[in-house]
Amino acid sequence: MRLLVVGGDAAGMSAASTVRRDAPDVDVTVVERGSYTSYSMCGIPYLVAGDLDDPEQLVAKSPEAFRAMGMTVRLHTEAVSVAAGARTVRVRDLTSGQERDEPYDELLVATGAHPRRQNVPGLDRYGHVVHTLDEGVHVRRHFEQRTQQRQGPPPVQRVIVVGAGYIGMEIAEALVRHGLTAMLVDRSPQVMKALDPDMAAHVERALRDFAIDVRLGESLIKVDGDGQACTQVTTDRGVYPADAVILAMGGKPNLELALTAGCEVGVSGGLLVDDRQRTTVGHVWAAGDCVEHVDLVAGLRRNVQLGTHANKQGKVAGHNLVARFTGAPEDVVFPGVVGTAVTKICAWEIARVGLLETDAREAGLDYAVTAFQGTARAGYMPDPGEVFVKMMAERGSGRVLGCQLVGTGNVAKRIDVAATWCQLGVTVQTAQLLDLSYAPPFGGVWDLLQVAARKLAKDLDLHPAL
Amino acid sequence: MRLLVVGGDAAGMSAASTVRRDAPDVDVTVVERGSYTSYSMCGIPYLVAGDLDDPEQLVAKSPEAFRAMGMTVRLHTEAVSVAAGARTVRVRDLTSGQERDEPYDELLVATGAHPRRQNVPGLDRYGHVVHTLDEGVHVRRHFEQRTQQRQGPPPVQRVIVVGAGYIGMEIAEALVRHGLTAMLVDRSPQVMKALDPDMAAHVERALRDFAIDVRLGESLIKVDGDGQACTQVTTDRGVYPADAVILAMGGKPNLELALTAGCEVGVSGGLLVDDRQRTTVGHVWAAGDCVEHVDLVAGLRRNVQLGTHANKQGKVAGHNLVARFTGAPEDVVFPGVVGTAVTKICAWEIARVGLLETDAREAGLDYAVTAFQGTARAGYMPDPGEVFVKMMAERGSGRVLGCQLVGTGNVAKRIDVAATWCQLGVTVQTAQLLDLSYAPPFGGVWDLLQVAARKLAKDLDLHPAL
Repeated sequence: MRLLVVGGDAAGMSAASTVRRDAPDVDVTVVERGSYTSYSMCGIPYLVAGDLDDPEQLVAKSPEAFRAMGMTVRLHTEAVSVAAGARTVRVRDLTSGQERDEPYDELLVATGAHPRRQNVPGLDRYGHVVHTLDEGVHVRRHFEQRTQQRQGPPPVQRVIVVGAGYIGMEIAEALVRHGLTAMLVDRSPQVMKALDPDMAAHVERALRDFAIDVRLGESLIKVDGDGQACTQVTTDRGVYPADAVILAMGGKPNLELALTAGCEVGVSGGLLVDDRQRTTVGHVWAAGDCVEHVDLVAGLRRNVQLGTHANKQGKVAGHNLVARFTGAPEDVVFPGVVGTAVTKICAWEIARVGLLETDAREAGLDYAVTAFQGTARAGYMPDPGEVFVKMMAERGSGRVLGCQLVGTGNVAKRIDVAATWCQLGVTVQTAQLLDLSYAPPFGGVWDLLQVAARKLAKDLDLHPAL
Repeated sequence: MRLLVVGGDAAGMSAASTVRRDAPDVDVTVVERGSYTSYSMCGIPYLVAGDLDDPEQLVAKSPEAFRAMGMTVRLHTEAVSVAAGARTVRVRDLTSGQERDEPYDELLVATGAHPRRQNVPGLDRYGHVVHTLDEGVHVRRHFEQRTQQRQGPPPVQRVIVVGAGYIGMEIAEALVRHGLTAMLVDRSPQVMKALDPDMAAHVERALRDFAIDVRLGESLIKVDGDGQACTQVTTDRGVYPADAVILAMGGKPNLELALTAGCEVGVSGGLLVDDRQRTTVGHVWAAGDCVEHVDLVAGLRRNVQLGTHANKQGKVAGHNLVARFTGAPEDVVFPGVVGTAVTKICAWEIARVGLLETDAREAGLDYAVTAFQGTARAGYMPDPGEVFVKMMAERGSGRVLGCQLVGTGNVAKRIDVAATWCQLGVTVQTAQLLDLSYAPPFGGVWDLLQVAARKLAKDLDLHPAL
């Protein structure tokens, strides 16, 4: 029996390891286009900017370690197409260019996402993407070479980052911390589209306070260079000298391989899988950034690209694959997601879960929202910090629909409380009376999330409204 | 109609405010023994040590502000006894010594707790308690006077704190931060009895690393002084020169008044109340540190003295009192507690919820426990921090029974996630697949609480065990 896994990062290797461990008779083969397995994509901004020096630090488990577990790992190998009837995958060795067929009994597609690009003259030539660890390493080495070399393009000082989402903001912040100057350009009128505009405004202010040059509602027109490196960037609003351009526009599911197998794509543009991670094609499974997720709050399906989901889905797929190979019930369920995400920009922690106001309107939900400013520590403590809180709940039921937090101090991981509420359908009536912690270094006697729950219970005329 | 509230802090004033607002025809009178209303007891250590200068900073709402809302607030007034049949309370003006009867239709007992003391020669005379804001202010002024005066006892440099619970540790830490030396003495073999011994050992190490002289398993024998101030403390292990002794041994419910009314006391030593905050005596209600709480995890009853419960119970009592006065159903329920608590000692954050191992054994529960060390940020980040995690779950059901966290970095408020799990009966099988947040500045791709949940699911042979 043979499991073939395409993609050697979180989802693929979680599944591969589970099968290797729990169904040791199964031959497990992994093909991976790049040079690394199981690495932290979210750590790449910190590598590019210089917080970390060794890319191996981002590798949770090396190809050698997986091989030592008894699996076959083929790096620099691209899966080109699937013959679902014959149960083979055409793979190409990227070094030699040679192709051959890999047979499988079960196939796991964990092909992740492609970085989004913009069709702008000069961008493909001079722009850097940092979507994979190979790309991150490439940019870092390129920057280092320009600092060390006497010939060629000058050292990188002025960087333009295109895309003001998590990764773009994290890169810009990390670059500024390391003494470079960063401009953050986005076509959207706000940073972080994962936040409501009023909450994103707080983040934008934090970026500007950190001397990041934020340019919103501004579109790239062209990138010019000297043949070796970028020299200037032209937008619809101005021309800016620049030593480097980094693209951080997010990703879109990498579907090419799965499409050759005949797998269906969902409404969100991710591969359609059931809650066991099975695609619509027999013996083909999928997990991670390439699939569509159930949004438990809205009851919709979305593509969400996050390592935390990739790891969990890989585990779920792995357990169900073990069941498939051993004839047991395939009964491990990935429950879905609620859109939890956090990031840190300078001293500011940013967190969100659930629906934005626009999501709630689109989903046709009747809701109330509360937004207010609080403190990260008790108000009388030295340096109490500031926290902007926004929460939404459904009229009638009182179910928590979403929460956003932006603040200094211990803010980000508090979103996990609201995430638990969103995922388990907890109401504001219940939430306000939960036994949440209190001590002056961590806030007031009413936890901020419970202050929000109380306000919503009142606004929604629910009982009790404390 | 008349509501009489005895005790002007969190529980009493939360209830009084609710009744004042929602039943404006009711006459609301509050009697308070001290000089302050609605203040943060938890902030007193920071006042004593000098983080805060003005005691008014700890006051959430002053007597004047409550009077401006239309209630009567009598400070320096002690409630001596209740005549439940006549519905009157004998009160004494502590300034004039005069007594009189205050009539009531409904009475709320919010008398809080007495500080625990030890029967040791010299301790009553020279030891300071810091249980009320008046006491906190007294100690602070006493310390300041000794620094400023040329005559009398010397400036306070060496302080012995008796009691190594939250408050004692917080005071010792704050004193050391302000340049004093602190010795922490406790009869118990561990600090923080709210933690299991293995977790308390991490806290003890943090205290010692901060140059706090921790003396455990050591009992006070006598306190000597020069007539004005403490000069030395004798224990069963040694004699220590000391400029001041502070008692921080926790509190026991202040029952005297309620006993005169004939109120029943529960097994835990707190006043027995139902989930609407009604005592066993008609028209007598109670809330806050003086009552017994339902422990939702163990199914037992405990007395837990925390401002967060006092505030919530005061609100619950207030809403039910409004119902009583207006003839509506008294249907607002205080659900109970799960023993959530946090504190901060130097760079260390300490958090706990639910049962200790001894609690679980006493409750006859069959459980598994996991304890391990993780990091507060992704392991590859500069300064990843360290976090000690311990979690317990029930065999069979997989219900989370308790969690303890000790670590550097954003640790404390993460306990609210486990608190929600404990309170709502969430199992480790569900917990491991919740959509909790991830970014390298806040941890690894598997949240520490989910790492614990996974380990427990495996150890308890539950399905799925990821």
